[in-house]
Amino acid sequence: MTTQMTTQTKREIVLTGDRTTGKLHLGHYVGSLKNRLQLQRQYETYIMLADVQALTTHFHRPELLAESVRQVALDYLSVGIDPERSTIFVQSMIPEIAELTVIFSMFVTVSSLRHNPTVKHEAKERGYEDLYYGFLGYPVSQAADITAFKATLVPAGEDQIPHIEQARKIVRRFNELYAPVLVEPDILVGERLDGLDGGSKMSKSLGNAITLDASPEEVSMQIRKAKTDPARIHKTDPGHPDRCTVFGYHCIFRPEGSEDIRENCQKGAIGCAACKGMVTDAIEDVMQPIRERRETYKHRPRYIDEVLMAGTAKARSAARQTMGEVREAMGIHYFK
Amino acid sequence: MTTQMTTQTKREIVLTGDRTTGKLHLGHYVGSLKNRLQLQRQYETYIMLADVQALTTHFHRPELLAESVRQVALDYLSVGIDPERSTIFVQSMIPEIAELTVIFSMFVTVSSLRHNPTVKHEAKERGYEDLYYGFLGYPVSQAADITAFKATLVPAGEDQIPHIEQARKIVRRFNELYAPVLVEPDILVGERLDGLDGGSKMSKSLGNAITLDASPEEVSMQIRKAKTDPARIHKTDPGHPDRCTVFGYHCIFRPEGSEDIRENCQKGAIGCAACKGMVTDAIEDVMQPIRERRETYKHRPRYIDEVLMAGTAKARSAARQTMGEVREAMGIHYFK
Ligand code: SF4
Ligand code: SF4
Repeated sequence: MTTQMTTQTKREIVLTGDRTTGKLHLGHYVGSLKNRLQLQRQYETYIMLADVQALTTHFHRPELLAESVRQVALDYLSVGIDPERSTIFVQSMIPEIAELTVIFSMFVTVSSLRHNPTVKHEAKERGYEDLYYGFLGYPVSQAADITAFKATLVPAGEDQIPHIEQARKIVRRFNELYAPVLVEPDILVGERLDGLDGGSKMSKSLGNAITLDASPEEVSMQIRKAKTDPARIHKTDPGHPDRCTVFGYHCIFRPEGSEDIRENCQKGAIGCAACKGMVTDAIEDVMQPIRERRETYKHRPRYIDEVLMAGTAKARSAARQTMGEVREAMGIHYFK
Repeated sequence: MTTQMTTQTKREIVLTGDRTTGKLHLGHYVGSLKNRLQLQRQYETYIMLADVQALTTHFHRPELLAESVRQVALDYLSVGIDPERSTIFVQSMIPEIAELTVIFSMFVTVSSLRHNPTVKHEAKERGYEDLYYGFLGYPVSQAADITAFKATLVPAGEDQIPHIEQARKIVRRFNELYAPVLVEPDILVGERLDGLDGGSKMSKSLGNAITLDASPEEVSMQIRKAKTDPARIHKTDPGHPDRCTVFGYHCIFRPEGSEDIRENCQKGAIGCAACKGMVTDAIEDVMQPIRERRETYKHRPRYIDEVLMAGTAKARSAARQTMGEVREAMGIHYFK
């Protein structure tokens, strides 16, 4: 189920987050962070530093996690996530998420996980023989993340739709087996940003990303190298904007001017360099305030730790409340 | 790896337990409880009421859990488990076990679980399509149970050997990936008691068990119906003790007299009724003190709850200590 940003009457609880496997990039901004900035103004918002989920693929590099937890937290503050409005917390510090994962795993079949399209896609890339148990179960653990906070809305990328569907199924099954204490989440699908090399989604591991801490020079250089319509050699050649990554960026970062760009590109009235310059300016409009905030926060590591500790304590108390209700519903709250 | 009861020099930490899916029976006594009575005198002993593990097969019957947790605790006290020596605790109340399960699941492959002979056997019985994720991962969760207490010795049935082997592998992998904080457990294999119908292991679900709360009349009636050598019709027919369930009981409950029984059975010098009477007496020698202790404890439900709460608090503190070391080893102990 997808929800429009216009739903404003319902009291939502938002749960979102990022795997702590490195710095965030513009793809994260477009796909989810931008939505969170709006959501935090209206709704109770939990933002999770998903270090346990990071372990599903990076268990052999735990040193990356400690570094990334703080890096991603700094990215959040730089983007404008306000710790007064959003509860930023560390996943591995909420044992109730692990407890819910274990409970849900009792009634989720292996075959439903193997048929999850996103798991399947990754499983194919990795070869089934090497699939790890925790990786296979990552939708179960995601359902635990969401339900621990009784989240109603999850802002995430399109590839997360099957996981949210699975979380909804788990909620229904739990409520039907025990008592209706858990809440079915909706997904708020964010925009997708292509990587600089065109075609695939922007992703740090593909090396096609503009990280949120990039300098103006880096942004400008990266856009200059971005893939455009390969058929266009001279400025006067008619272009095909729909085959051009940069045009995609226009649609996202300066939608108001994108129709002009389309026309001018198609009739060969604008050069790629000028076109890229315009989009670079629009991206800089996003990047500049992020960069300024980062300057303030990056010298305040103790403040970041305080934000995370306070957020984690608050999140823990919400998760503990849910876990109490779960125990009650299952009749495993033995001693009162 | 199996250990002999004679190992007395090493300082062992014992972890053992039972799924809380109903009353315990003589098979549990022979296979594990008897060993625990000895072990608790020498070693630090943790005994787990495995209610989470019970959920792997009984998630749709949680009402059974609350009942069984106290039933099994009463069985423990009746058998002679001494809460001053053994820490009896409830699995679902130790969140660190769930946390360890989630962490271990990152580096255990699905195929290693699918090839675990005990999982495979049960999977075959259930049909792979219906296998639940938590059921498939039950050896991972068992490794978490054991390592949470740094147990060195696990008294269990022969069918648990593959799980202990898997736990040892998980420990080695963890210690090699992060830091050597976890301990490889050994198994102490208990005797196997056949069910009254002969052939298969005594098991409540097969209806071939003598529960530990059976009255003298029930014991005597059940033994009277127990399967013997089918070739024997008259008292003077030569018998085949090795094909007789009752002979197996002689070997376990009155081993000193079993060679006589063998001879007399083989030469047709003893009738089955007399033979059964002798073994009933020997079983009664075990059952009588259990029954007496039960009389005391069954009227003290509050005492049982206190034992479980105190044991769980103690177990929790040990598990929390291990979990702290695990976080430290993995570098995910972010705030000190
Ligand atoms: S003019 Fe712009 S939209 Fe057209 S191909 Fe060049 S960069 Fe792409
Ligand atoms: S005499 Fe005893 S051992 Fe022999 S068949 Fe009868 S019950 Fe079994």
